[in-house]
Amino acid sequence: MAITVVGSVAYDTIETPAGKRERCLGGAATYFSLSASYFTDVRVIAVVGEDFGKRQEAVFQARNIDTRGIEHTAGKSFFWEGSYLDNLNEAKTHITDLNVFASFNPKIPDAYRDSEFLFLANIDPVLQRRVREAMPQARLVAGDTMNYWIKDHRPALLEVLKGLDILLINDTETKMIAGNNNLVQAARVVMALGPKTLVVKHGEYGATLFHGGQTFRAPAMPLEEVVDPTGAGDSFAGGFFGYLASQPEQSPAAFRRAMFYGSVMGSFACERFGTERMQKLTRPEIDARFNLFRELTHLA
Amino acid sequence: MAITVVGSVAYDTIETPAGKRERCLGGAATYFSLSASYFTDVRVIAVVGEDFGKRQEAVFQARNIDTRGIEHTAGKSFFWEGSYLDNLNEAKTHITDLNVFASFNPKIPDAYRDSEFLFLANIDPVLQRRVREAMPQARLVAGDTMNYWIKDHRPALLEVLKGLDILLINDTETKMIAGNNNLVQAARVVMALGPKTLVVKHGEYGATLFHGGQTFRAPAMPLEEVVDPTGAGDSFAGGFFGYLASQPEQSPAAFRRAMFYGSVMGSFACERFGTERMQKLTRPEIDARFNLFRELTHLA
Repeated sequence: MAITVVGSVAYDTIETPAGKRERCLGGAATYFSLSASYFTDVRVIAVVGEDFGKRQEAVFQARNIDTRGIEHTAGKSFFWEGSYLDNLNEAKTHITDLNVFASFNPKIPDAYRDSEFLFLANIDPVLQRRVREAMPQARLVAGDTMNYWIKDHRPALLEVLKGLDILLINDTETKMIAGNNNLVQAARVVMALGPKTLVVKHGEYGATLFHGGQTFRAPAMPLEEVVDPTGAGDSFAGGFFGYLASQPEQSPAAFRRAMFYGSVMGSFACERFGTERMQKLTRPEIDARFNLFRELTHLA
Repeated sequence: MAITVVGSVAYDTIETPAGKRERCLGGAATYFSLSASYFTDVRVIAVVGEDFGKRQEAVFQARNIDTRGIEHTAGKSFFWEGSYLDNLNEAKTHITDLNVFASFNPKIPDAYRDSEFLFLANIDPVLQRRVREAMPQARLVAGDTMNYWIKDHRPALLEVLKGLDILLINDTETKMIAGNNNLVQAARVVMALGPKTLVVKHGEYGATLFHGGQTFRAPAMPLEEVVDPTGAGDSFAGGFFGYLASQPEQSPAAFRRAMFYGSVMGSFACERFGTERMQKLTRPEIDARFNLFRELTHLA
């Protein structure tokens, strides 16, 4: 089943201990859609500037991602510059230029309106809500957010949470939304705000799923070299939601496998700069790593 | 098979968000031996002062732990006071009084000399090495250490590492010994220093086993309430090594199950203050939680 994703398509300048890359193609919707494209059809809603050309478009087309919802407008695309020199687990932001993103008003192509799966990537909760309301046919809605919206845009965020089936966030964000430092208690508070399912991402330690009264933990693979962690969380979300959307039924077992696929895609994302790795995977590579992850926690 | 453990038997004053306890029975050897006692016979080598009496002795006896190696001497027992008010993952130390521990010279009862399993809990590496050399019959030797020894007693610690089969430490300690911030690379450096097997504990995120060219990750259970994390790492070590010692063969599959038992015992330790929970477990309770952990990462 097709997923529609709304979020940022951007340029990133990234420095890590492995080196520096200027103006890589990035953005949450880019990582998410590339990752999900290995599992199901993906349709993107975003806005880009005049610096987004044929070469960038080709990255999406090579993965058969529907880009009719990417609006082209005068000005420059969203730009982010950050580094991970001291700590690979936390980006230090140097520059955030919203550019055309500052006046983003998501427009939904008619061809997207039958999407049964909707992913609201990390953008202004006012826009997340607008998209959710404009797509009432979506029967499974997942979303992400970040500390900035949690701290300074709480009322709008609470409205979004009401309309979400699945929220994917990290430990800090979970505890921040709940105002509670115990993960299990915080998860319960967050789920009472709307999402029946909560996925808490722990970076290099995997992720925890709270779903249907059960808790499930997927490992992350200890990586020999983390080249660039940018987009790992969005790639996790793409693998998780893409796999779910590809299944005939979103059963508890499917949710568990989806957690592993999320973890797999997050680990691939870290292996190269930007979206390099996400662009050139194959499904057999993905399934081989899925089996490696299964082996990683398998008791004889 | 019997395990001999050398380490601290102490009193701890602990404050956590759940409350405060004055002078609980504690110490690495105490947590380790209580935890391991659910799996195999345990013999302790330690030193205590005049404040260690029949009531404390009874805690060990109730678990059939051999205390003939606990030396009673004039003075006070090792005392530690700490709190976890801001962060349950990291103790803030207020007081460390070594007391009788300052001149600890481990004496090994003859009755302990046939122990095939030896655990060197976190003490001065000079003492760890002395005990290891005095027990040449031990065929599987595991140990722990901490940042203080890694930073300021490196040459002595390196001598200990040469004689260890298994080292159990946390993420920070692994990276500190190796001088490398990537866990996989750091693990390789540490293992080149001696231990063929490395267990890296990640606190609430479980632990990773590097063994026989393979990597294995055991989860930790997300806990509804962490009452007191003191001794969780030593209880992990007790469950891990106790289970291994109880097995006819220390096969790769036994190591994997040992990781789960370690994680199980670490999770129990956090549920009450001090050693309260470690004193009153039953093997069926332990195995029930083992199955819960297995379920926690089980793919249908």
